[in-house]
This record gives sequence, structure tokens and C-alpha cells, in this order.
Amino acid sequence: MRKIYVIGIGSGDPDQLTLQAVKALNAADAFFILDKGAEKSDLIQLRRDILDAHIEDPSYRLVEARDPDRDRVTPEYAPAVEDWRRRRADLFERFIADDLGEDECGAFLVWGDPSLYDSTLGSLEEVIRRGNVAFDHEVVPGISSVSALLARHRTGLNRVARPVQITTGRRLAEGWPEGVDDVVVMLDARQAFTRYLDQDLFIYWGAYVGTADEILVSGRLSEVSDRIEELRAQARARKGWIMDTYLLRRG
Amino acid sequence: MRKIYVIGIGSGDPDQLTLQAVKALNAADAFFILDKGAEKSDLIQLRRDILDAHIEDPSYRLVEARDPDRDRVTPEYAPAVEDWRRRRADLFERFIADDLGEDECGAFLVWGDPSLYDSTLGSLEEVIRRGNVAFDHEVVPGISSVSALLARHRTGLNRVARPVQITTGRRLAEGWPEGVDDVVVMLDARQAFTRYLDQDLFIYWGAYVGTADEILVSGRLSEVSDRIEELRAQARARKGWIMDTYLLRRG
Ligand SMILES: C[S@@+](CC[C@H](N)C(=O)[O-])C[C@H]1O[C@@H](n2cnc3c(N)ncnc32)[C@H](O)[C@@H]1O
Ligand SMILES: C[S@@+](CC[C@H](N)C(=O)[O-])C[C@H]1O[C@@H](n2cnc3c(N)ncnc32)[C@H](O)[C@@H]1O
Repeated sequence: MRKIYVIGIGSGDPDQLTLQAVKALNAADAFFILDKGAEKSDLIQLRRDILDAHIEDPSYRLVEARDPDRDRVTPEYAPAVEDWRRRRADLFERFIADDLGEDECGAFLVWGDPSLYDSTLGSLEEVIRRGNVAFDHEVVPGISSVSALLARHRTGLNRVARPVQITTGRRLAEGWPEGVDDVVVMLDARQAFTRYLDQDLFIYWGAYVGTADEILVSGRLSEVSDRIEELRAQARARKGWIMDTYLLRRG
Repeated sequence: MRKIYVIGIGSGDPDQLTLQAVKALNAADAFFILDKGAEKSDLIQLRRDILDAHIEDPSYRLVEARDPDRDRVTPEYAPAVEDWRRRRADLFERFIADDLGEDECGAFLVWGDPSLYDSTLGSLEEVIRRGNVAFDHEVVPGISSVSALLARHRTGLNRVARPVQITTGRRLAEGWPEGVDDVVVMLDARQAFTRYLDQDLFIYWGAYVGTADEILVSGRLSEVSDRIEELRAQARARKGWIMDTYLLRRG
């Protein structure tokens, strides 16, 4: 039976791999890496560096494929993602069926933690539903960009006995989530925090957390918002891409 | 200047330590471990095992203290925790001031990820506010029990582009959180999920995740709820303590 590992590799710092992840890397015969295009080539390189650093027997195979483009224009965000995930499942299926021998072990390297805003598990489930190729799979948890961000800011995700919500920039732009005073925002291309400058909020912001390019800013939102926008625009122009996450804390 | 590491050690599986955590363990001269009493002695032993397994030079010092009891009767949950945190800060201050030399490095081993429902960072901040002893501190993120649980169930924390809330059993017992269909529940001593048997919910439940005692159950809540209650009661009676976490997913 083919075996597939879905390995969380942390969100930037190669030392954030777990010992379990290193063992799984060394158990794999072939790795599957999705290429998201020029702007993300730094991330592909980081994945390659991780393999070089942690794998003892360099005879593994590396299968790279171009990640299907997602329709970013459609207002229906979820259906567009669903379609993209389906096309991704085609790629996954081909990797498992064509690039792995009957008793071989393959691995997907997932940024951060595989449970958080990542489509790998969804695509694999789609492959399982189709039933064209049989395999067993195991998930290796990773340090998410949320844990990494909060560690760098040396603060908690939640306050004592209080709830926290993790959401997207798109949703935060629609309104403050009900019933929570602590909100983590990911996938925010449009700085949704600027909508809340009139509120009593504290922000813990970080971009490229864990990498050499890491930028951290924290403070009263109304006071640091401009600086974050400026730093973000500069970094994005310089590198061609940006990944940032933040925690907003009320009161 | 004294240096303090707050090290997330994962939530049960010693292989869930990161390489960064192993490096930090090896940089520390002394470790501070809080003893929560007989019922948690397994967890103390697991921390000792981690030190034995990962530290190369066995000349480190181990400082153990009894964690102050928390007033669990008071209805004011947050103030009781605050008071307990203050008494904990006294212990922390003594460890840093009395048990560490001027240029030495100390470490706190934190279960799971230090950002999630853990008081260590709060207690350290209290020590800093008091200003009696100067130190620098660094946080090493860890695999939380949430990431570990979801990895074992091979599912996501959130669904595509959707928000997720992380909350406590106490809060879930008061009502379903507004605006989310995915809720992770921690610190639930009273199985708050039993309040929602009439709803269309799916549960991913796990106890002692990552340890030899791990128990996992998933399924339609109305169908598996009884089994979870039974397994939970049995395990708790057998071991004397339990740690469980679950994700409830609506629709
Ligand atoms: C598709 S999601 C994947 C998240 C990933 N699975 C995790 O656990 O962090 C991508 C988002 O993660 C966040 N992110 C990932 N890596 C990051 C980093 N190094 N610094 C800051 N944010 C990061 C950003 O919000 C980005 O938009
Ligand atoms: C005080 S909180 C600490 C959480 C920890 N910092 C983390 O990142 O998981 C304790 C709660 O964590 C959860 N927990 C911790 N370890 C667990 C495990 N191995 N299996 C299931 N739940 C666990 C339970 O909900 C427990 O009530």
C-alpha cells in the first residue's frame, strides 16, 4: 500500500520542524512540491533547503508541479477555491498513481500547520473519494504562522479563560466577529485592520515571521497602523510577495 | 543578563518537539518545573523523559516547585486565575533570582504551545512589571494539542475561507458562539458538547493525544456522544486525570 505523509514544516524557520517531521522526511521516497509561480519561488527554495538540511540519504525524488491558478476575480470565493482544489486533486492523484511505486512512501510539504487554511488535506480527501488509487495517509502537525507570530511577540493567543477567533482578512473587512475580543487574521491582502482605527485595539503584526526578512510591529492600532501599511508596502515591493498575520486585541 | 526560554514541548509525543526546542533545552543551565500534585505526576515524568532524551550534557539543574492551588469554587473564574497567577509569579521570581546565576540561562517547559491557554507568559510579565529581577526572555513555539488532535483526525481546523473559534468548555456550556460553525473546545471538565445533541454537528474528539493512552473518536455528535462520555469516564477513573480537546463542526 502506498503511504502519504502530509508534513507541516513550520512557517519560515527551518529549526521549527519537529523531530517527527524530520523522521517522516527521511521515510519518504518522493516529495511533491507545488510551484505557485515566480513570486513564490523563495518559498519553493526554502522547501528545497529543508530537504537538503534534514534528509540523510539524498537519493529521494522531487516532483514539482505548477499549482493550478485560482480564479481570484469571481466574487464567489469558496466555489472558486473548490474548483481549484479539484484541479489540484488531479495533480495529487497523478503523483500518487504515477510517481510512487506500490509500496513507496510520498510526502507533501505543507507550510505551517496542515490544519490551518491549507488545501492539501481537502485535495487528498477528494482523491480518496474518487477511489482511483489506494493509499494510507498520516498528518504530521507543524508550527503554524499563528504560533510563530505569537512566540515572537511573546504573547498569548487568548486571554485567561477567553475565546479567540481565527479568521480571514476578507471576513474581518465585513465586520468585527461577534462575541470575541481577540481575533487572529490571516490571508489579508487588503489590510482589513484599517477599518478599525477608531476602536480601542492593540495589534501584534508580523510578516515573513521566522525568516531572515521577518518584520514585527506591535502597539495601539491607531498609533502603529500607518507604519504597518508603509512597511508592508515597501516589503511587498522589494520582494514581490508578502505573507503577514496579525492578532487584534480589544480593550 | 539572565536569559529565560519558554519552551513549547508539544502535547504528549516527545517527537513533537521542534529542533529549535531541542537547541533551547541544550542552552539552558536550569529547568523550572511546576508540580501540580499526584494526579499530574505522569506529566511531570513526561517532562523529565524529554530532558533525558534530548539533552546532551546531563549537568543541568532541575528546580521543582508545587504549583499554587487554584480556587476552583469561586464563580469568578478569571479573578481566581489572576490570583493564582500572582502566586505563581512569586515562584517564578524566586527561580530567576535565586536559582540562576547572573549570566545563566533558565527554561520553563510548557505543555503544547505557550500561546494557548497557558499562564507562563502572563506570570513572567508579572515578574517583569514588579522589576525586582532583570532578565531577557524568548518563546519557542510548540505543537498545540489542537494541531495534534486535528493531525490525528486528518482534518482541518477551519473550512475553506471560514473562521474558527477556540474556546473553553465553560463558555460552550453558556451557548454556541456567534458567527462560527467550527468551534474547538479546551479545558472542558463537564462535556459541554452534550448540550448540543439536537443539532447537526460533527465531533472530532481526542484524549491524551500523542501519548500511549491516546483515545480518538469522531462522528455525528448525536451518534457518538454516549461513547465519548463512557470512554472519558473510564479513562479518567483508570488514570486519575484526563486531558481532552474536541472540534465541533456544524452542517
Ligand atoms: C494559505 S495560509 C497557510 C497557513 C499555514 N498553513 C500556517 O499554518 O500558517 C497563508 C497565510 O498564512 C500566513 N502566513 C504563513 N506564513 C507566514 C509567515 N512566515 N509570517 C506571517 N504570516 C504567515 C499569512 O496570513 C498567509 O496569508
Ligand atoms: C491549560 S490548557 C494547555 C494547552 C496547551 N498549552 C496546548 O497548547 O495544548 C490544557 C488543555 O489542553 C488540552 N490538552 C492538552 N494536552 C492534550 C492532549 N494531549 N490531548 C488532548 N487535549 C489536550 C485539554 O483541553 C486541556 O484541558
